[in-house]
Amino acid sequence: MKYCSSCGEHVARKTPDGDTYERWICEACGVIHYQNPKIVVGCVPAKDGKVLLCKRAIEPRYGCWTVPAGFMELGETIAEGAARETREEACAKVEIGHLFASVDVPQAGQLHLFFTAELKSDFAAGDESLDAALFAEGEIPWDDIAFKSGVFALKKYFADTGKNNGVHIHEVVFKRS
Amino acid sequence: MKYCSSCGEHVARKTPDGDTYERWICEACGVIHYQNPKIVVGCVPAKDGKVLLCKRAIEPRYGCWTVPAGFMELGETIAEGAARETREEACAKVEIGHLFASVDVPQAGQLHLFFTAELKSDFAAGDESLDAALFAEGEIPWDDIAFKSGVFALKKYFADTGKNNGVHIHEVVFKRS
Repeated sequence: MKYCSSCGEHVARKTPDGDTYERWICEACGVIHYQNPKIVVGCVPAKDGKVLLCKRAIEPRYGCWTVPAGFMELGETIAEGAARETREEACAKVEIGHLFASVDVPQAGQLHLFFTAELKSDFAAGDESLDAALFAEGEIPWDDIAFKSGVFALKKYFADTGKNNGVHIHEVVFKRS
Repeated sequence: MKYCSSCGEHVARKTPDGDTYERWICEACGVIHYQNPKIVVGCVPAKDGKVLLCKRAIEPRYGCWTVPAGFMELGETIAEGAARETREEACAKVEIGHLFASVDVPQAGQLHLFFTAELKSDFAAGDESLDAALFAEGEIPWDDIAFKSGVFALKKYFADTGKNNGVHIHEVVFKRS
């Protein structure tokens, strides 16, 4: 961030009065530009004991498999966001179940939330997917799952065996290279 | 949003190629400025069957009572955020328990997440609080709780009677005036 999105003048890094964090502040108009973590919402659409995964047609992790998930949009609920992502990535309708996994990714400024879901339609690869397919637990391509949060969610999903055991919480920490 | 925070030129409302939503896009440098919901994290600090509430010293809802909660910061987990807010608002240390309530507030572009917690220290009004006090269920000032999400969280907290019944999900909808 270099410029104020309200007035176009330069911003500087300062701690506002009464705050304990440095923020981007406009030196001209005084607006404080807060930056906060983003929410990624997804689900594990299930049918006859198998789960629906999508093969990514976009970076990062092009060609890897993932549960349908993506950034939550303004104006929607987390359940609506998870259903929308499934529609976009797998052309599928789902009935969202319960929230079962919450994965913090503080180094990326993200929180990933995963719901159980029932697959209620046919499916196909959406614009951001190369493929979409159903996998039984023993068929999951664990080494080719796109993100660690997705691996955690899938492991907990199968461990729960359909029960609501509350939300499994996890933190993904990247190794410094 | 009027100006690009990267280059300072004007932004316009357009749908990027391959996207389904209008975004703020810089007409000069092409940067897309995504806007996403913000996360509010809080907890219900409990001791001997009573819960710790704070009386707000700031707007909105100055003078009303609230569970310790506030905007999640970059670089922290949701549990760390809930503990930090409790430290700031009630000068109290807590041991965070399980996630038990998730409240969507789509009209405000917010998601409110609440944990159970054990109060592990003394407490006092922080900078943003006029007071901090312990309340038994029958003593909660229901008509003076600051936010609907906090009312929902407190009701579910007491209904759970200490059990982890998973996450209670709720949506707050404001009446149009």
